[in-house]
Amino acid sequence: MKKAVVLLSGGLDSATTLAIAVDEGFDCLALSFNYGQRHASELLAAKRVAEFFRVAEHTIIDIDLRQFGGSALTGNLKVPESPTEGIPVTYVPARNTIFLSYALAFAEVRKCNDIFIGVNAVDYSGYPDCRPEYIQAYETMARLATKAGVEGQAINIHAPLISLGKADIIRKGTALGADYSITVSCYQADEHGHACGVCDSCRFRKAGFREAGIVDPASYNG
Amino acid sequence: MKKAVVLLSGGLDSATTLAIAVDEGFDCLALSFNYGQRHASELLAAKRVAEFFRVAEHTIIDIDLRQFGGSALTGNLKVPESPTEGIPVTYVPARNTIFLSYALAFAEVRKCNDIFIGVNAVDYSGYPDCRPEYIQAYETMARLATKAGVEGQAINIHAPLISLGKADIIRKGTALGADYSITVSCYQADEHGHACGVCDSCRFRKAGFREAGIVDPASYNG
Repeated sequence: MKKAVVLLSGGLDSATTLAIAVDEGFDCLALSFNYGQRHASELLAAKRVAEFFRVAEHTIIDIDLRQFGGSALTGNLKVPESPTEGIPVTYVPARNTIFLSYALAFAEVRKCNDIFIGVNAVDYSGYPDCRPEYIQAYETMARLATKAGVEGQAINIHAPLISLGKADIIRKGTALGADYSITVSCYQADEHGHACGVCDSCRFRKAGFREAGIVDPASYNG
Repeated sequence: MKKAVVLLSGGLDSATTLAIAVDEGFDCLALSFNYGQRHASELLAAKRVAEFFRVAEHTIIDIDLRQFGGSALTGNLKVPESPTEGIPVTYVPARNTIFLSYALAFAEVRKCNDIFIGVNAVDYSGYPDCRPEYIQAYETMARLATKAGVEGQAINIHAPLISLGKADIIRKGTALGADYSITVSCYQADEHGHACGVCDSCRFRKAGFREAGIVDPASYNG
């Protein structure tokens, strides 16, 4: 069975990505980060999702992006509760680049050449590191960075959600048996995992379920 | 004054790289990592080098690559004391990719577009992430990953030592006033910073000083 490293945040997108990797026959090694995010209940959700899909291994890595500041998700900026223009303040500098770099190291040590990440260019078009051209460039770099790449093996960065809208992601995950009641998408969920209902992430999620005609099992405060 | 993030390990190469960045007129933000390396005296050397060059800021980030294992520098493998073929066991998977990713995040938060790294393809040809094509691919990825890149600014990854041999690096650093007595290059230096004299890194360093006709101020046990 081919192994894959799957980045797992505990949100709807990464749960769907894991469902897809499992469905494609990969033996999945889930990788999550404790990066000083405000919404720590995300990590509890990641554990539940990893258990739900019975992954071979779930590793949580502590990294402290708060040292750098610069984002509403890790710093003191306020999470916006209505749509904004341009790159949102919830953007964490180079976050996906750091996450993928750990995934690459982990993949190299575990001798696997496939990495899954649940980025999605449609709903989050404001984040530069969620675009297809970024993922493509990362893959090119990864092939040059690693022992496996030097030996002529391919390193594949799979971003199966990249061109899907939220409703399609939800339909796909539902068809694959993902349980969205155990996921947490909110940027400012409380300690019980209850979502605010008004941040970007909650609004995209709610709209996605509505469009898909599926009931959102999340618990909203707002 | 233009700012640059400079990766600083405390070894000869990164000290020379910092000397070059300072000479090019950059206001330097030094970035070091506590990554579970066996040679912790390297970090003390990094602090001395940062002070020597009076950098604007020196940040040390804790990251635990030991969780992944897979290298003689962080795990339980033995550091080789004679030349070996192929990619050496001292190779830390994706290390430069992880280091550059933190540098990229740090640069983005501090609003600077220049990153310096002291990789060198000549003496360490066995490490895939020390090659010019790797640095080039990283730069391309970095431009797509960041807010600055999206806004049309260049992100520059400077690797000024990449095609230099050890003797040329030492000549260059010496000409720029670098004090190599405060650097530690050894893969298994003791707690006082005394070098073993026999690992790859020591052998390259010794040969470099010999070829440059300069006395190596390092203290060797072997």
